[in-house]
Amino acid sequence: MFELGVVYRNIQRTDAATADGLAKFGSATVHEAMGRVGLMKPHMRPIYAGAQVSGTAVTVLLHPGDNWMMHVVAEQIRPGDIVIAAITAECTDGYFGDLLATSFMARGARALVIDAGVRDVKTLTEMGFPVWSKAISAKGTIKATLGSVNIPVVCAGALVHPGDVVVADDDGVVVVPRALAGKTLEAAAAREANEGEKRARLAAGVLGLDMYKMREPLERAGLNYID
Amino acid sequence: MFELGVVYRNIQRTDAATADGLAKFGSATVHEAMGRVGLMKPHMRPIYAGAQVSGTAVTVLLHPGDNWMMHVVAEQIRPGDIVIAAITAECTDGYFGDLLATSFMARGARALVIDAGVRDVKTLTEMGFPVWSKAISAKGTIKATLGSVNIPVVCAGALVHPGDVVVADDDGVVVVPRALAGKTLEAAAAREANEGEKRARLAAGVLGLDMYKMREPLERAGLNYID
Amino acid sequence: MFELGVVYRNIQRTDAATADGLAKFGSATVHEAMGRVGLMKPHMRPIYAGAQVSGTAVTVLLHPGDNWMMHVVAEQIRPGDIVIAAITAECTDGYFGDLLATSFMARGARALVIDAGVRDVKTLTEMGFPVWSKAISAKGTIKATLGSVNIPVVCAGALVHPGDVVVADDDGVVVVPRALAGKTLEAAAAREANEGEKRARLAAGVLGLDMYKMREPLERAGLNYID
Amino acid sequence: MFELGVVYRNIQRTDAATADGLAKFGSATVHEAMGRVGLMKPHMRPIYAGAQVSGTAVTVLLHPGDNWMMHVVAEQIRPGDIVIAAITAECTDGYFGDLLATSFMARGARALVIDAGVRDVKTLTEMGFPVWSKAISAKGTIKATLGSVNIPVVCAGALVHPGDVVVADDDGVVVVPRALAGKTLEAAAAREANEGEKRARLAAGVLGLDMYKMREPLERAGLNYID
Amino acid sequence: MFELGVVYRNIQRTDAATADGLAKFGSATVHEAMGRVGLMKPHMRPIYAGAQVSGTAVTVLLHPGDNWMMHVVAEQIRPGDIVIAAITAECTDGYFGDLLATSFMARGARALVIDAGVRDVKTLTEMGFPVWSKAISAKGTIKATLGSVNIPVVCAGALVHPGDVVVADDDGVVVVPRALAGKTLEAAAAREANEGEKRARLAAGVLGLDMYKMREPLERAGLNYID
Amino acid sequence: MFELGVVYRNIQRTDAATADGLAKFGSATVHEAMGRVGLMKPHMRPIYAGAQVSGTAVTVLLHPGDNWMMHVVAEQIRPGDIVIAAITAECTDGYFGDLLATSFMARGARALVIDAGVRDVKTLTEMGFPVWSKAISAKGTIKATLGSVNIPVVCAGALVHPGDVVVADDDGVVVVPRALAGKTLEAAAAREANEGEKRARLAAGVLGLDMYKMREPLERAGLNYID
Repeated sequence: MFELGVVYRNIQRTDAATADGLAKFGSATVHEAMGRVGLMKPHMRPIYAGAQVSGTAVTVLLHPGDNWMMHVVAEQIRPGDIVIAAITAECTDGYFGDLLATSFMARGARALVIDAGVRDVKTLTEMGFPVWSKAISAKGTIKATLGSVNIPVVCAGALVHPGDVVVADDDGVVVVPRALAGKTLEAAAAREANEGEKRARLAAGVLGLDMYKMREPLERAGLNYID
Repeated sequence: MFELGVVYRNIQRTDAATADGLAKFGSATVHEAMGRVGLMKPHMRPIYAGAQVSGTAVTVLLHPGDNWMMHVVAEQIRPGDIVIAAITAECTDGYFGDLLATSFMARGARALVIDAGVRDVKTLTEMGFPVWSKAISAKGTIKATLGSVNIPVVCAGALVHPGDVVVADDDGVVVVPRALAGKTLEAAAAREANEGEKRARLAAGVLGLDMYKMREPLERAGLNYID
Repeated sequence: MFELGVVYRNIQRTDAATADGLAKFGSATVHEAMGRVGLMKPHMRPIYAGAQVSGTAVTVLLHPGDNWMMHVVAEQIRPGDIVIAAITAECTDGYFGDLLATSFMARGARALVIDAGVRDVKTLTEMGFPVWSKAISAKGTIKATLGSVNIPVVCAGALVHPGDVVVADDDGVVVVPRALAGKTLEAAAAREANEGEKRARLAAGVLGLDMYKMREPLERAGLNYID
Repeated sequence: MFELGVVYRNIQRTDAATADGLAKFGSATVHEAMGRVGLMKPHMRPIYAGAQVSGTAVTVLLHPGDNWMMHVVAEQIRPGDIVIAAITAECTDGYFGDLLATSFMARGARALVIDAGVRDVKTLTEMGFPVWSKAISAKGTIKATLGSVNIPVVCAGALVHPGDVVVADDDGVVVVPRALAGKTLEAAAAREANEGEKRARLAAGVLGLDMYKMREPLERAGLNYID
Repeated sequence: MFELGVVYRNIQRTDAATADGLAKFGSATVHEAMGRVGLMKPHMRPIYAGAQVSGTAVTVLLHPGDNWMMHVVAEQIRPGDIVIAAITAECTDGYFGDLLATSFMARGARALVIDAGVRDVKTLTEMGFPVWSKAISAKGTIKATLGSVNIPVVCAGALVHPGDVVVADDDGVVVVPRALAGKTLEAAAAREANEGEKRARLAAGVLGLDMYKMREPLERAGLNYID
Repeated sequence: MFELGVVYRNIQRTDAATADGLAKFGSATVHEAMGRVGLMKPHMRPIYAGAQVSGTAVTVLLHPGDNWMMHVVAEQIRPGDIVIAAITAECTDGYFGDLLATSFMARGARALVIDAGVRDVKTLTEMGFPVWSKAISAKGTIKATLGSVNIPVVCAGALVHPGDVVVADDDGVVVVPRALAGKTLEAAAAREANEGEKRARLAAGVLGLDMYKMREPLERAGLNYID
């Protein structure tokens, strides 16, 4: 773990059907389906609103102010992947812009998730290449130090193994370990299944207090109504 | 104050004409009209741009990571209300999503103001239910601890009594105490009245220095012009 | 430097052709062209997405919670200028709204860059007057204390002399000293010149590893590929 | 509420025995005794470690960068008081230094709690005058704008009425409303009473799991032990 | 990974000689010895200056505002352990105070590292029980939700497996994976070995430029000296 | 300005008597004496309490995560200097530890002021070498990229020219331009001169309201006393 200067070329990706299937549930439902773990910190924000994706993680560990390994990870991208970029220290520099995005898209990447900054966000938005980052910055980087590709990384507080599924939308970014992806997909589908009915009842004016049968436990907990 | 486990069912709301009338002036003008007090901290941001609302406050005090009382407050909402949610400690969890929004809208709520996180922001945006919050997070919450409804709360640095008027737009969120709402409405209208004329003069190239007669006080204060 | 209570009326502006010519390259390219210096901190964000401008700096130094000098600087604006507002201490108050924007536009200002807050952002967006700021806040200011106009200021970590060129877009704000503006324009144009070709090659699937001939230096640095 | 330009000279202070009696329990125990409400945000830190005080609140509302009202509140201090200073906007300026501290001490003040900055902290430490603040800054302030004295204020997220009890130590600052002070003192004493015995048992190796009888509820909640 | 509601009782701890031996090198040297990875974020600060420890990690995953599992982890502590507490979301509540510290010390724990708040810091300091945390807060917690003990956790940006070595001092907290601990100890010792000689030479006025033979590479990189 | 890869060997230092003389007034008084400008941001904190120094600035501009130029600047230090280190982007890495401190002390440096992180703070404290920084971090840096020495830099929001005077204590860090140093020394001495008398009067119970004759201006501003 945390080896520097290595690139793992063969990683076990979550099967495509599962990885692709998680996108439509969104990060909030998937996070619930996992038992409320695996979420990146809320400082990770999309560069434009409305993107909702899932895909298999290829990971890259970078040094502050140095994006050399971004070119190394590009070669390891396969269609359906999402690149997860972690930094060994706090940094807001713009590691990624429209040229790298062009390359990533040509390789089939669906998105970039980076715990640092990006730039060229206007062009990235026009290209429709979604990025979740902690900052936007015109500050470029150098190419001097080796990091690693496809090792496990901690990105924005979440552990990501290569091949895990990443689900990202306007609510944030959640990581589903490969071994749990199938079960999580089922659990997410089950959660979603009865949401439509719930929504209809709530829209009709039924209260959550009644629909979820909360009145009795609230009373037991000692809630007092005062007129 | 700050009683836990109580729900006040009968609150005195500011009269609807006054509460509704404040929306069109926006938070900046209302804040000026009040003498520059009552503003929430600038970390409170709308989940989408362009919403501008006013309404009567129903308040809820929540614990970190626990949204149980959100269902309790839903029952106390009347058409024209804005829900003000305060937390007893710093928390960025997503307390509120599309199902609760459906319920709040069905009860007639106009907006939510919460000093914590929300989720399902894409759906909330599509539904047109505006929220001002300090974070966006897919992280859900539990339902285990009693808070209170319709007690005075401190939300994002502002004191809110149930029934106060809340004015929110892209500039922020301001709270108008019920007793001052009528006077504030008048003061806001008076401020606005001569803004049109001022704007026309400034657009025509008249300087604020002359329009506001600042040259003499600036000179008196010692301002030096150097060529 | 840092004189208080002075207004310099005659400043040497970068020539218009150079100042205007830098806009189209954007902050990231200009920042690179300068050798990666001169960038404001990434907390400076545009109030709406998509604006991209350059212009000559007129500067103003303000005190916390006091925007008196904003009216003084208005008179010094000439067509093509961008106002750079620095504050003597941390402050998020809303120093600038639609009336001042009307006046600034009437004088020919292209944008405001302020290391504090602004308000009326909805109207400013409708007016198409771009602002880069560190906060949005309905909180107004008083008019009580003298600052200065057209002295060198430090704004969001960057030193700005009156007459320097300012380039701002969604990626941030960069300052080009007047003496370096011509050379920077050339360097930016040179950088941009071969970007189109690079983009085409990357879009065709060529890797940066090959296009930039990185394989050999990476190997020399000790990168290991593991299958 | 939030009137500007007023000084209330006659406030009802919590009786001295109660106000003084709360100090020895410290902020954590008092906060628990109140039902876990009334705490200021954790950004409020003491300028030196080890001070532990309680006293009756006299309040002051200040504007950003302006400490004029600090001199007005000084006159309202009586022995046993703690000054609570709130600001109408975010500000880190140094509102208070050794001269004001000399004056406050001469009036009998026990401490200052301010949601902004202070300075001369080395001298304040030598004088033994404790301050809880959100920042330390050499930046001074002007004297230009009226605030108020002894109105209710929101300070670091907590509502403070004049005459309330304030308890502050290395863990933070808690506010006890006057009407609840007596009951809180009793509750704090009751909590503390059996702490000694608990501490002895824990020191002897008894586990909280057993002392608090948590094993059964943990099992019921589904906790699994895996060897 | 990230299972909720489980307690692993049998973990493989790094051997005591290695775990104990790392303390004296401190976090900076150990971090270098590992190749500059494994460091927690710099927001993790000691509650008092001067403590320097190492030990084997027992881990606990907690929910925001809920310290129930702290009592569960206490039972799993063995002499020489350091408790690593991660939270599933951002939280500054005070999860840990003098009673829990008494229990932890009785079990042989050397320190607590927690990515949240602690309280009773004055007493903890007197007890000599060191804690590294991101906040100090009098705010207590509830006991309602299951987390886990001795699963791998991400704490302050660092991945920690139960049994890993943790080294903490005034510079921060570093995590050494069990498999790398022996090698890291050797590397740290090697680094330290010639530090004494270096220090003597630098103290005698020899420049790093000469001692590290940097003049030639600096010249090659293009450094210009201007008189 | 902001040239990269240059070292200015001959800088004009403020004369020693003036530079040395400013220390005893402290940052707050010097900042007032300058007209309340020149202060670094309040995130700059001393690594230990109680140090109070002044000296002549030698400056260094560094890149994120790279401390190569620290060795270059060491050679330019003369007795009485304070090293001012600015970074081209936000960074919290530990650029400086006990070995560099040994070298700096051997050259006669009085302190380091760095808008980034430092490490070995326990040893630095024992050595009595004061540092003002924005972070403490065990994270080391590489030596790969050229910055500059003795160019003007912006450090923590303040512009520093080589040879300026720097005054630092527990309240913060203030920069006095060389050309203003003599005048500032006089102004600081004048401010201090009558502080003793003021302190005595305040200690005797005289109110600032009377001593500064504020009652009449407060009344004129509209202050109301309510009994």
